[in-house]
Amino acid sequence: MIKAGIIGSTGYAGGELARLLLGHKDVEIKWYGSRSYIDQKYADVYRNFFELAEDVCRDDNLAQLAKEVDVIFTATPQGFLAGLLNEEILSQAKVIDLSADYRIKDVAVYEKWYGIGHKSPQFIREAVYGLCEINREQIRGARLVANPGCYPTCSTLSLYPAVKEGLIDPHTIIIDAKSGTSGAGRGAKVDNLYCEVNENIKAYGVTSHRHTPEIEEQLSYAAGENIMLNFTPHLVPMNRGILITAYASLKKQVSAADVKAVYDQYYKNEKFVRVLDAGVCPQTKWVEGSNYVDVGFAADARTNRLILMGAMDNLVKGAAGQAVQNMNLMFGLPESTGLELVPMFP
Amino acid sequence: MIKAGIIGSTGYAGGELARLLLGHKDVEIKWYGSRSYIDQKYADVYRNFFELAEDVCRDDNLAQLAKEVDVIFTATPQGFLAGLLNEEILSQAKVIDLSADYRIKDVAVYEKWYGIGHKSPQFIREAVYGLCEINREQIRGARLVANPGCYPTCSTLSLYPAVKEGLIDPHTIIIDAKSGTSGAGRGAKVDNLYCEVNENIKAYGVTSHRHTPEIEEQLSYAAGENIMLNFTPHLVPMNRGILITAYASLKKQVSAADVKAVYDQYYKNEKFVRVLDAGVCPQTKWVEGSNYVDVGFAADARTNRLILMGAMDNLVKGAAGQAVQNMNLMFGLPESTGLELVPMFP
Amino acid sequence: MIKAGIIGSTGYAGGELARLLLGHKDVEIKWYGSRSYIDQKYADVYRNFFELAEDVCRDDNLAQLAKEVDVIFTATPQGFLAGLLNEEILSQAKVIDLSADYRIKDVAVYEKWYGIGHKSPQFIREAVYGLCEINREQIRGARLVANPGCYPTCSTLSLYPAVKEGLIDPHTIIIDAKSGTSGAGRGAKVDNLYCEVNENIKAYGVTSHRHTPEIEEQLSYAAGENIMLNFTPHLVPMNRGILITAYASLKKQVSAADVKAVYDQYYKNEKFVRVLDAGVCPQTKWVEGSNYVDVGFAADARTNRLILMGAMDNLVKGAAGQAVQNMNLMFGLPESTGLELVPMFP
Amino acid sequence: MIKAGIIGSTGYAGGELARLLLGHKDVEIKWYGSRSYIDQKYADVYRNFFELAEDVCRDDNLAQLAKEVDVIFTATPQGFLAGLLNEEILSQAKVIDLSADYRIKDVAVYEKWYGIGHKSPQFIREAVYGLCEINREQIRGARLVANPGCYPTCSTLSLYPAVKEGLIDPHTIIIDAKSGTSGAGRGAKVDNLYCEVNENIKAYGVTSHRHTPEIEEQLSYAAGENIMLNFTPHLVPMNRGILITAYASLKKQVSAADVKAVYDQYYKNEKFVRVLDAGVCPQTKWVEGSNYVDVGFAADARTNRLILMGAMDNLVKGAAGQAVQNMNLMFGLPESTGLELVPMFP
Repeated sequence: MIKAGIIGSTGYAGGELARLLLGHKDVEIKWYGSRSYIDQKYADVYRNFFELAEDVCRDDNLAQLAKEVDVIFTATPQGFLAGLLNEEILSQAKVIDLSADYRIKDVAVYEKWYGIGHKSPQFIREAVYGLCEINREQIRGARLVANPGCYPTCSTLSLYPAVKEGLIDPHTIIIDAKSGTSGAGRGAKVDNLYCEVNENIKAYGVTSHRHTPEIEEQLSYAAGENIMLNFTPHLVPMNRGILITAYASLKKQVSAADVKAVYDQYYKNEKFVRVLDAGVCPQTKWVEGSNYVDVGFAADARTNRLILMGAMDNLVKGAAGQAVQNMNLMFGLPESTGLELVPMFP
Repeated sequence: MIKAGIIGSTGYAGGELARLLLGHKDVEIKWYGSRSYIDQKYADVYRNFFELAEDVCRDDNLAQLAKEVDVIFTATPQGFLAGLLNEEILSQAKVIDLSADYRIKDVAVYEKWYGIGHKSPQFIREAVYGLCEINREQIRGARLVANPGCYPTCSTLSLYPAVKEGLIDPHTIIIDAKSGTSGAGRGAKVDNLYCEVNENIKAYGVTSHRHTPEIEEQLSYAAGENIMLNFTPHLVPMNRGILITAYASLKKQVSAADVKAVYDQYYKNEKFVRVLDAGVCPQTKWVEGSNYVDVGFAADARTNRLILMGAMDNLVKGAAGQAVQNMNLMFGLPESTGLELVPMFP
Repeated sequence: MIKAGIIGSTGYAGGELARLLLGHKDVEIKWYGSRSYIDQKYADVYRNFFELAEDVCRDDNLAQLAKEVDVIFTATPQGFLAGLLNEEILSQAKVIDLSADYRIKDVAVYEKWYGIGHKSPQFIREAVYGLCEINREQIRGARLVANPGCYPTCSTLSLYPAVKEGLIDPHTIIIDAKSGTSGAGRGAKVDNLYCEVNENIKAYGVTSHRHTPEIEEQLSYAAGENIMLNFTPHLVPMNRGILITAYASLKKQVSAADVKAVYDQYYKNEKFVRVLDAGVCPQTKWVEGSNYVDVGFAADARTNRLILMGAMDNLVKGAAGQAVQNMNLMFGLPESTGLELVPMFP
Repeated sequence: MIKAGIIGSTGYAGGELARLLLGHKDVEIKWYGSRSYIDQKYADVYRNFFELAEDVCRDDNLAQLAKEVDVIFTATPQGFLAGLLNEEILSQAKVIDLSADYRIKDVAVYEKWYGIGHKSPQFIREAVYGLCEINREQIRGARLVANPGCYPTCSTLSLYPAVKEGLIDPHTIIIDAKSGTSGAGRGAKVDNLYCEVNENIKAYGVTSHRHTPEIEEQLSYAAGENIMLNFTPHLVPMNRGILITAYASLKKQVSAADVKAVYDQYYKNEKFVRVLDAGVCPQTKWVEGSNYVDVGFAADARTNRLILMGAMDNLVKGAAGQAVQNMNLMFGLPESTGLELVPMFP
């Protein structure tokens, strides 16, 4: 059994990690970390775990935790892990970080977009960007995995083949994203109250959302050159789900069948990426509760643009599920262990 | 492997059966029945099953189906199974009926509340009412199980110990129930359109809902006498979940601790009934996607009444999950096989 | 023009008051009070008022406010007004209090249920309970009106005629209530976050909700004797709306037509109470945004009980709309001025 | 009093027309047309009108209707009005058509995108496109107004000044739109059921939505040349509201202040277009129930693109409200009569 600890287990991503790890036959959760609920029963914070988890929440003692477990998941605010990580911890336990601390290779970019200094830049190079479908081999050997952001996961997987194969001009990419409200976290803020979110939709972080440079970096690797793009997230009145709708100019005339052939080639062996039939638009409800990303597309001959769409559950493939997928790779388990969840509809 | 067939697989309960059976290690779905979508790919009707189910929907041929499978689930309108069932079918396959056809022992009561004649009353006596927590032993040996209705499951499990132990006067029982909209089915009706249900709550079927006699029958067994009660369901703007709030006059002065002791005694070994701590009210979200029923209560010394509350997922414990639980019992499997789903929150 | 001031204008009830008063041809809002947003533009707090209200939020200076306006609305926490009210204020401005401070005539009952001492019990006797349909004449002459609570408004109007006319045994009353989330206020609490409320329903305040004694007092007047009842509120995933479903034993055999005749007699001249046709259940969406209460009922001959249902918008008839209705009466205006809003559907 | 008739009064746009016209002091509704509910009481179809509208639904007899009223609103399927309109009708009553029949000046474009032949192309030239803020003077004198589509209203008003003033390259425009579900109409379709829409988001009509050519035509007038653009609508789990997020390349370097200055110049006297302060993103909830369009923007110096956002209520400014605004202009009334509704929040 793999012994696992979760720092930040009482946030929504942390709770989803607990849900998935409790259903994972090779894992035992040894540490439910939560600064806000120290000494309270975990199942009193999230009563869905009543009679399923008997543990009490523990303070964030990363050094101690590293001694007790095989893998640490950090579902924590930006800067938290960067401020505490050291060689001793990494020599004792593998770390999968759900924050952005080690996702961006250029520390200056991180510091500019996140507005904080990076306390342990020495680990950035070592950290592997945990997008399993693209970096599978490096993840297997990693001590430190930077679990991708929710929007970057959906955006990168939806766009990667089109960029890599030169179907589209990467300098024309515009990503219009829509997310359920769990992505905003469990903090008690007026903006996230039921009555403020319900029956409402808005854009936020326009031109300034922190996931922009992360997406740009990943797609720049695919493009073989540095690219910039527009990324605009929107808050949607639903609990879970991310949908991205991306637009880019075609570099060559392609049919929907051509695009599908390219995507099938990239993803035919990828269990968690489902390339939809031509003409089918992904819906977030079709992947809810599961680790799937559904990808669809439409080519517009009139405007010579390609429209790419991707849907996933932000808490699963966009956070906890992908973290478990990374853990499986790091520990030599079948990649889908504990993730064979059929999406729940309705 | 148990071979299973689903009649009515494209309704919401049928889709949930498919979800659960696909995740059940000892079952193989051999027949996706659907009169409305014959010859269409099941995954084109419910795209959450894309790449997970390759089957095509088949017509409702119960006689043929019985030859091909070990167990038949009928998630069909009232009267459908009663019109087709015969000894030959029952001699070939076990049948778990999610409709009301064999739930009520008194055929006159069935015919009065459902407004249709019963075509095969000869099987009513044999049919076992599939509330596992109460009729476990009979279910093990059954050929025909009447899977309980959603409201009756939640109501009966919430009230049974209090009635059986004589804590409350069974003639004073009032059950005010609230259900998510999946309970209304997938039929294309104006009343179930998004804009009609959303931001709205209403009672329906007041004094006339068909689950009333089913609840009365089960609680009459507990009371040892015939009882009548009020049952009022409400439609709530959410996909899943049933909450019942029941009221009854106390027959003796009891504390919350007394009530909890009684309920613990009944349910301490029941995996799927969770008796909440005193003072904790159940919430439907805490059981979503799982087979649990959460039960809570409050004793009101002022009015000398007991308030009992129960929450469950209407599509799981209230339909497909309970059907699988029954199947497990009928085939000698551990009762929770395929049902070890942690509730999903949020 | 009536000059009006609102204390607590940035809560949901306060915002609704602003919406209604801005649409009232005889009123001018002179004071937007808000401790939390002092000196901020009101339209920056509630952007629906952009270009409609240019005012800046002011601190809670009741004494000063009384000098500047004709009527003060207090949409404030319990105890606030009781701690500040004095004869000088009441001699300068009429006061309509949306809190519970002066609703309950027995100060001991108030102090017990609210858990705070009452600082100005000398005004309790003078205060008029502002349920216009019942206390119209007293309201006309009042200086201080205790605007009824949301649940008590809906409950009392739904039950009053049945109790007063002796149709039901008042000692058997059980009220099961369901409310949209705006009733929980705009405070930043985890329990009211979108993801906690959405796709969820729960009871709360079981046996202990503070509106219980308020309802009991009003229905005791109708009964001519002291009564106690059960009142159980539930939180529903919708912004607005209250539905109450009430149960009581019939004292005489009545048909639905009999009940309707009684209710018509009480409400035939009441613009804001709509007695639905027999067999029609009220829905909250049919009254959204308006000052109507829709009342329906069903008599159950089997159990000898009457089921009464009432639906209204908790922020309008349950708070701000009723406050404006009271103001209209107090200032000699036609009672429906500014309240002629057609419900919005969908 | 203006006598008004509504064809299609039992659709959502028709119901909203009834709501607004009932609150309009100069209008009397004389005809509630509905093929589906002939001879049924209108208030039985939409019970929000209980005790407010006593009328019975009438069949679609346009010729007779024209004799009885001053203005006809047609909230009908595409092709309906085109198949019936004639000179006699237009000589008797003004017609405001909420369908697309007369919106597009090039009949070939209409026939291609709508897939039906146009039965009365002779009226296309006469019809005035009823976007009041742009075509105010022509509307005043019109007999036949083509009320703009919901998406085109929001898109055109959000983009018009930027295109007209040459801030952006009109050949780079991409409009990503999000709509509440009332835009899908009241037809009983599985896709619009509560459980299919709730907790879900999807794109639809990608590259093929019929509002595309309507937006292109209007913005081509602004650009002074023919343009093509991408328009992608999404279905959002909420009743009302449209948000559009539009992207285009800047033709010159501009600051947010520059853009705001341009928009203020166009809209400073427009009551129903509110140009938000720089940095504020519009939200659909801030305009719900009202006739406002809120417009915001962000200039991205990194990518040299302008992002324009517009929010409105699809049933009001996107349908019924704009129709009333057109009627007011056509009958010489103050433009905002009956439309002074403060948005409802929450």
